[in-house]
Amino acid sequence: MPVNLSAPDPAQLFPVAGVELGSARAGIRKPGRRDVLVIRLAAGSAVAGVFTRNRFCAAPVQVCREHLVDDAGGAGIRALLVNTGCANAGTGRPGLDDARASCAELARLLGCDARQVLPFSTGVILEPLPMDRLRAGLPEAVADLDAGHWAQAAEAIMTTDTVAKAVSRRATLHGADVRVTGISKGAGMIRPNMATMLGFVATDAAVALPLVRQWVREAADASFNRITVDGDTSTNDSLILIASGRSGLRIESERDPGAAELKAMIVDVARTLAQAIVRDGEGATKFISVVVEGARTDDEAAAVAYAIAHSPLIKTAFFASDPNLGRILCAIGYAGIDDLDVDALDLYLDDVHVATAGGRHPQYREEDGQRVMQKAEITIRVALNRGASATTVWTCDLSHDYVSINADYRS
Amino acid sequence: MPVNLSAPDPAQLFPVAGVELGSARAGIRKPGRRDVLVIRLAAGSAVAGVFTRNRFCAAPVQVCREHLVDDAGGAGIRALLVNTGCANAGTGRPGLDDARASCAELARLLGCDARQVLPFSTGVILEPLPMDRLRAGLPEAVADLDAGHWAQAAEAIMTTDTVAKAVSRRATLHGADVRVTGISKGAGMIRPNMATMLGFVATDAAVALPLVRQWVREAADASFNRITVDGDTSTNDSLILIASGRSGLRIESERDPGAAELKAMIVDVARTLAQAIVRDGEGATKFISVVVEGARTDDEAAAVAYAIAHSPLIKTAFFASDPNLGRILCAIGYAGIDDLDVDALDLYLDDVHVATAGGRHPQYREEDGQRVMQKAEITIRVALNRGASATTVWTCDLSHDYVSINADYRS
Repeated sequence: MPVNLSAPDPAQLFPVAGVELGSARAGIRKPGRRDVLVIRLAAGSAVAGVFTRNRFCAAPVQVCREHLVDDAGGAGIRALLVNTGCANAGTGRPGLDDARASCAELARLLGCDARQVLPFSTGVILEPLPMDRLRAGLPEAVADLDAGHWAQAAEAIMTTDTVAKAVSRRATLHGADVRVTGISKGAGMIRPNMATMLGFVATDAAVALPLVRQWVREAADASFNRITVDGDTSTNDSLILIASGRSGLRIESERDPGAAELKAMIVDVARTLAQAIVRDGEGATKFISVVVEGARTDDEAAAVAYAIAHSPLIKTAFFASDPNLGRILCAIGYAGIDDLDVDALDLYLDDVHVATAGGRHPQYREEDGQRVMQKAEITIRVALNRGASATTVWTCDLSHDYVSINADYRS
Repeated sequence: MPVNLSAPDPAQLFPVAGVELGSARAGIRKPGRRDVLVIRLAAGSAVAGVFTRNRFCAAPVQVCREHLVDDAGGAGIRALLVNTGCANAGTGRPGLDDARASCAELARLLGCDARQVLPFSTGVILEPLPMDRLRAGLPEAVADLDAGHWAQAAEAIMTTDTVAKAVSRRATLHGADVRVTGISKGAGMIRPNMATMLGFVATDAAVALPLVRQWVREAADASFNRITVDGDTSTNDSLILIASGRSGLRIESERDPGAAELKAMIVDVARTLAQAIVRDGEGATKFISVVVEGARTDDEAAAVAYAIAHSPLIKTAFFASDPNLGRILCAIGYAGIDDLDVDALDLYLDDVHVATAGGRHPQYREEDGQRVMQKAEITIRVALNRGASATTVWTCDLSHDYVSINADYRS
């Protein structure tokens, strides 16, 4: 059961002019479900992406990187091709050949160059992409292309997700009606080191390519790079930002009218999509925000936040709604800050002051912790009181269902 | 169900002259179980320890460090006091006062100085030590002191352990009958960064104190520092090595006759005790050795080994006996080696060559992986093929029972 997350209402997903989406049931891994997605972009769209830092990055990620640094760069990209069911990772040279061949096949159908297509895959690692089925599914997906198909697109990229993830924002900026719409997928193997498994965000504003490249990085840092389900950084993480340029708003620099507002909309969409992944985290029953303040450096804040967010002991205690909060102190203690003064820090659970001066706060009572633990959304706040850096990481609990889902993933 | 681990046979636990053990049922946390242990040492015993690097280290760990660097150093230690049920960690100054008071109380009963007592606690963090019950239990434990009580001692330090852990070795060295006997406890919050939760190893050889100090560190590095259950480094990890000097073997330097053999016995006992913790890891159904070879540095080998050993996705796949081995490649990929050539490495599961040249080995068949996955003890071997460093880490799988045990730990 996802935490405060329901399937998107298609009526609330605003089409983005210049962006059409079409999906097919190609039987990549399981029959009868949407598993291939094509996104066609109008000529002149600016496209940029951030990708996993996993050294075993998937073949499609390698091809994406090549196609985005080609002469045409992100200005020539005309289509995205996504399949679920097979990650095409750990597949060596044959995997690269498959990723390139799938771009070529879609390019043939759309009348563009293979290097104008970006490929994406998600699913099981170490298994070859079933090229025959993928190829056979492409015409159906192309025939389905429509600017109103964001909801079906979100559905087509799901793996162990229980809910499709899509979100849309709309505003009048500098006189133009501007939209930002995005989709994402992911539920396990989530500790993005760039982005989530897959995220696609599009706006109809015209944004200069260097700025698209900068904003996709900043948006990832404020969203997908701040979530974790199980600490496993995937081989396929990709976040793509598209600016189709059809709305009448034109942004060349961050000082242009509407730029700040548009960037905020993009970050908002990316963050909402990222949090949706945690809310639908495998087996999740609780949505946990870990806030670390008063750190000396950003790295220090992140180290403490991730130590807490990755601790199986903390995650199981939250699953049980058990305020066994000493486990949080323990994680702070092993986060790697050698000169940490444990007597100087404060720990809060929502509004409850749990620990101070190296031990339990004098006013802390078990029932206060218990009360907060019953909630579906909880904030763990650590004030290190040694500097001015802060960070927030979003995560979920660790339940029986996480084990079940991942023990049975391939069956 | 622990993996190939049964309770120790008391007849196989050789007494160590100069070391007596006594336990009591003090009701520290739950009634009716042994939860307080006293170990009395003959005058002149050499004692050294290694302790957790967690910054939130428990009060007893802080007191141990003080007492081991006092003027008397490790040569004056006459007793160890261990309680289970409460970790006395995250307890601030009152926790330190309690740890010191418990040493003083035992010292009074044994007729020694408080600084000649080392205190140890294990159990729930952030709760005060129930001093009244601990104090009340001490006379019973002292009355129970006996050199033959190693098995009861192992039982008295258990928390979520399902099996008591004790092991013994005996040899004739340089004409003397020499024994090494040890006990340990631990099942969760296990990623020792020094030692396990608690480990005590004693020999009746006379070993010079500087050598005891050196050997306890080397033994920890070859044993407790190579295991992980859940990646949570505890607040209370402690490994203690005692040399009572009653056997007639006297070791002043590593070049003395019998020194190499004795050291090997100590490492063997420590490693067997450490592996017992993994075999009895919370919810464990499989014992997994992660061997990383051909790394450029020891740190690099350890980073890859721990990335594999901590991945919840890998651990759940092993629980399910599912050869979803792409997850291992994924973990290697995010282990932090920036210039790793994934095409150069090889992955083996026991004798099965799984991956090479960046993808699946041509001869690998699913049924080969399936066959190995059915076993209770499995070796994952990664040949990085880029250097001469290697390491081994022992871990277990992640099962439903891990979640159950840790969701219910305090109830």
